[in-house]
Amino acid sequence: MSDFAARLTDGVRRHGPLCVGIDPHPGMVPALFGGDTAKGLEYWGRALVEAAAGKVAVIKPQAGFFERLGPGGMAALAAITRAARDAGLLVLMDAKRGDIGSTAEGYAEAYLSPGASFEADALTVNPYMGLDTLEPFAKRAEAGGKGIVVLVRTSNPGAADFQMLETGGKPLYMHIAEALRPLTERLMSPCGWSNLMMVVGATAPEEARRVRVAAPKALFLVPGYGAQGAAADAACAGLIGGEGGVVSASRSVIFPKAAEGARTRDDWQAAIEAAILAARNELQAAALA
Amino acid sequence: MSDFAARLTDGVRRHGPLCVGIDPHPGMVPALFGGDTAKGLEYWGRALVEAAAGKVAVIKPQAGFFERLGPGGMAALAAITRAARDAGLLVLMDAKRGDIGSTAEGYAEAYLSPGASFEADALTVNPYMGLDTLEPFAKRAEAGGKGIVVLVRTSNPGAADFQMLETGGKPLYMHIAEALRPLTERLMSPCGWSNLMMVVGATAPEEARRVRVAAPKALFLVPGYGAQGAAADAACAGLIGGEGGVVSASRSVIFPKAAEGARTRDDWQAAIEAAILAARNELQAAALA
Repeated sequence: MSDFAARLTDGVRRHGPLCVGIDPHPGMVPALFGGDTAKGLEYWGRALVEAAAGKVAVIKPQAGFFERLGPGGMAALAAITRAARDAGLLVLMDAKRGDIGSTAEGYAEAYLSPGASFEADALTVNPYMGLDTLEPFAKRAEAGGKGIVVLVRTSNPGAADFQMLETGGKPLYMHIAEALRPLTERLMSPCGWSNLMMVVGATAPEEARRVRVAAPKALFLVPGYGAQGAAADAACAGLIGGEGGVVSASRSVIFPKAAEGARTRDDWQAAIEAAILAARNELQAAALA
Repeated sequence: MSDFAARLTDGVRRHGPLCVGIDPHPGMVPALFGGDTAKGLEYWGRALVEAAAGKVAVIKPQAGFFERLGPGGMAALAAITRAARDAGLLVLMDAKRGDIGSTAEGYAEAYLSPGASFEADALTVNPYMGLDTLEPFAKRAEAGGKGIVVLVRTSNPGAADFQMLETGGKPLYMHIAEALRPLTERLMSPCGWSNLMMVVGATAPEEARRVRVAAPKALFLVPGYGAQGAAADAACAGLIGGEGGVVSASRSVIFPKAAEGARTRDDWQAAIEAAILAARNELQAAALA
């Protein structure tokens, strides 16, 4: 069985770095699918999976948008995740979990263990509580060919509050990137990239280059392209020769203007596919530039 | 309607600072209740609620242990949460969520909005992504009389990796405690304590005193008492005259030795109640010392 890094690298070679974010913002799921209900989210998410399959390597569901609808919303998340993996898409679960010892094991089991309801290919995790809190996720990654995606430098304005604090002559996010080096090496894939991925926001391309120097073998998950304002070339700043990470886009590809007036399933799907292909082509060109 | 800080302070005055952690470790839920299944967790959790009601002010379910069982586990979490609030217990949801903008709003809605499946009295959140990521939780706290519980200094060994890094002449966790001051003041309750609570581990009493000086009006959530090794007096280091926070105990009160051999529901309940009362009395004495 190939591991996460190998599967992702293979997919990015074929489709480019676009990662489709499945972010069901409240009130934005079309009435066509059932609107803002657990079932609506499920049908809409399954339709997005159909539209994305064969065009991109990976999707990224945002757990918070499903959790807000309770256990039913979480069931929708599980169904979409399963449908995506069945369709040959990789699933990068964006849940930003993090806790100590046995609780972290609970989250790792939920998202990274074979056969779990929410089984994904990789999971985003928060490093604030320390390296020991990443260990249960790392163990699951090693055992099951999964990936872990650690928050390093995020794309929101408030990222500067703590991530940019100077400590020992460098900002905190750089300290974290360097502290992750042993784990990045431990999770190295035969494909040449590590199964440890880092979140490095597209809104900070200079910082992405800096993290890239400190972590040459870590895959990057780059949020912030599209609706959050970053251009394709800035988003691809940390990639190397079209490899080494993915760039996520959400609102611009799942809620494109052209889909707003769609009255039929076919019109909707055509609008989504066009938006995905446009973003895919723009990013693929930028990644290879 | 009174707010979280007022409800908690009133409860702690009556029952002392013990907070019962609902942590269904894999394989430890008694067969009596159905063992390690979603239904087993629900029945066991409801029984713990019955045993704790009237003896303590607050319980703290650990979301990760429920999430590992998928949407069914999350339904059990919702049922236990509802049962606890119906029984007059406050629920401090330990989910350690955190994300940017609209995703954070999703989590805030899931756990802090009136009528939500997982509606709790307060939610633990991770500050690494910045102050703007706490805003959706703060808004829900203001609107609905809820609390937010921010990770500051955790009780695990790896807490030192990043929380203790020196920045601007003080460790990162102190910088975060100070950066939270405006929000702590904004969320002030008429009761004299803020609806912003801070996680300050019991394994570091000196540091708890330091945070207390920086944040005199923040409630403390103190994990690490009991199974994690801290004594009652160390756990109460940041409390003032028996007020100002709660101390959580989990394994020592929900899986006490005396409950291991229990063959009947009544034997089990007697063992749990005895363990809760012992911890309650020990902490109440330490908090007032």
